[in-house]
Amino acid sequence: MHRLRNALDRLLGYATTLVAAMVIAACASSGGNTSVAPASSPQAMPAAAAVLPSWREGRSRDMIIRFVNDVTREGSPSYVPAAERIAVFDNDGTLWSEQPLYFQFVFMLDEVKAAAPKHPEWRNNPAFRALAAHDQAALAGQHKELMKLIAVANSGMTVDEYDSAIRAWLASAKHPRFGRPYTELVYQPQLELLAYLRANGFKTYIVSGGTIEFMRVFAQRVYGIPPEQVIGSSQIVKYEMRDGKPALVREPKIDFVDDGPGKPVGIYRNIGRRPLLAFGNSDGDLQMLQYTAAQPGPHLALIVHHDDAAREFAYDRQSKVGKLDKAWDEALAKGWIVVSMKDDWNVIYPPARDSSVFSGACGCIAKGEQQ
Amino acid sequence: MHRLRNALDRLLGYATTLVAAMVIAACASSGGNTSVAPASSPQAMPAAAAVLPSWREGRSRDMIIRFVNDVTREGSPSYVPAAERIAVFDNDGTLWSEQPLYFQFVFMLDEVKAAAPKHPEWRNNPAFRALAAHDQAALAGQHKELMKLIAVANSGMTVDEYDSAIRAWLASAKHPRFGRPYTELVYQPQLELLAYLRANGFKTYIVSGGTIEFMRVFAQRVYGIPPEQVIGSSQIVKYEMRDGKPALVREPKIDFVDDGPGKPVGIYRNIGRRPLLAFGNSDGDLQMLQYTAAQPGPHLALIVHHDDAAREFAYDRQSKVGKLDKAWDEALAKGWIVVSMKDDWNVIYPPARDSSVFSGACGCIAKGEQQ
Repeated sequence: MHRLRNALDRLLGYATTLVAAMVIAACASSGGNTSVAPASSPQAMPAAAAVLPSWREGRSRDMIIRFVNDVTREGSPSYVPAAERIAVFDNDGTLWSEQPLYFQFVFMLDEVKAAAPKHPEWRNNPAFRALAAHDQAALAGQHKELMKLIAVANSGMTVDEYDSAIRAWLASAKHPRFGRPYTELVYQPQLELLAYLRANGFKTYIVSGGTIEFMRVFAQRVYGIPPEQVIGSSQIVKYEMRDGKPALVREPKIDFVDDGPGKPVGIYRNIGRRPLLAFGNSDGDLQMLQYTAAQPGPHLALIVHHDDAAREFAYDRQSKVGKLDKAWDEALAKGWIVVSMKDDWNVIYPPARDSSVFSGACGCIAKGEQQ
Repeated sequence: MHRLRNALDRLLGYATTLVAAMVIAACASSGGNTSVAPASSPQAMPAAAAVLPSWREGRSRDMIIRFVNDVTREGSPSYVPAAERIAVFDNDGTLWSEQPLYFQFVFMLDEVKAAAPKHPEWRNNPAFRALAAHDQAALAGQHKELMKLIAVANSGMTVDEYDSAIRAWLASAKHPRFGRPYTELVYQPQLELLAYLRANGFKTYIVSGGTIEFMRVFAQRVYGIPPEQVIGSSQIVKYEMRDGKPALVREPKIDFVDDGPGKPVGIYRNIGRRPLLAFGNSDGDLQMLQYTAAQPGPHLALIVHHDDAAREFAYDRQSKVGKLDKAWDEALAKGWIVVSMKDDWNVIYPPARDSSVFSGACGCIAKGEQQ
């Protein structure tokens, strides 16, 4: 069990010291605070002719457009055939928000609560009692015990059953500050960038520390990124017969941690080509950015800097979630693009929707042909 | 070292008792026997209008065409949107030959010989001496020691360096019986099937027990399958700085064995959708075929039966390489398509080429847009 805990710490664990934040998030997802109105002005989708309308004029936008023009113009010394145009994006903090806690972690905690009726023995478990009571002080001493509960509650089922649980959660859970479904807290400028890249022959990938199954259920509808282009951390799944039918069952054991030095490895393992463009926001993206930026051919490395407390959140070197420190220094030293949410983006989130993407029939937010 | 040996046994290890065969192959790749002429008649590429011209009229061909028509015809009850049309193919024995020994294994043995000058200590190693002398009797007792040499010779370098070694080998090595480069010993009917599926909106994947890097170097040119659609076994690779540059370095440790029950897991991990069509040839493909065939929606499960000793090889239930036993029984019980190489294919290999695919500029054998 000790090894299991360690493994879970690694998986969740670009967040190992977040017990306090967990309580906040757990309370919030239980309806503790949904009063804050959307901070951004709704904005119409870009007209066909407009390029990156939610990006303000400036160096960031200019460099992106120049780069795309260079690699797509036949005869250009930087020309790259379409088949080799790979763009990789971190997810948490790069494509959607990640504060006050990784959204997936909120889900996994909610799964503990949802599993409680099947586990009467938890009634006397101090970690579960602290979680259920939103008792931050008590929970602070129960980190390891809580990780065990998370492992139990998020394993043992088939991958199809787990997918259904994720979908159900995304259809109802709301963000504590913005009161919107988590799938709406994606960045409108990034949706436009993904679509713009795809329109220019790029294949767009997510390369995230989060787990593949959590992102895959919404990546197609929200980002226009199909499941096979979602690279992430994973638990071991095991093939077995259940009720006479083949099933893939989730084991409480880590398979792969797609974070930090794991990201270039995940890219190699799943794509086998070096990306032309990499976009991240934290130190967990440093190696992916280095790997992309070190190639002799054309490339673009970008970082989102969360400097907009009014419209989203402001955090960097000192943050427990999405810490940006070493990667920021390297970006400055090497001339990578540091995108200021405050200055470079004229809108943060897409317009509010009438219903969750999981309530409607399709509800694709992102336009642009899937690639 | 014991664990390493076991891991290697697993990786190579849909072939753990093949020392005798190794010697044959090792001798052969050293030029021991290249006198046998190609057994198949060259055949022109299909005309644009013809569908699967190297497939003879019959149940196998009919069922494939009917299936593709059904899932692609809008309004059909079996219609499947293009984004969900996934087809998976085993490689060894399904897309190219695998006798007398998996071609990748021949390469890995040749790497041991190539690495010898850097390892003077091997001069007195009994396994190396037996390999170098093609001494089958001596080698038979050195299985574990040989696995150690293979691990050393195929690890420690960057993935780019290893790719170069694979390319160089594929450019020069020839098959012992047919005297042709290994990349020409692909099945012409399957090249046509891959192209036909892609022309009908399918995304074609390889799902193989072989390792990703070995297949990726030729899958695009030979099969029209890009690197990101090659799923296979893998060694651990580690991100590190070499000469101040980011590098991915091969560790002598298994990451994932994509064989048997590992195949549905690999499909889940890399694609995240259940394939509509799965094509294999051995018991190592059984679970992939079960997983594909168990879905309620439209699907097609196929097996190549190697029953053509004259033009290729004849083997099934008793073979050490590519054993087809349980999967055959299940195919017969469940009505999966068992393709007879002898009866269903009017040609086995594509026409001989003037030079290896690795000598020419492009030399794509497979036509059809990549997808």
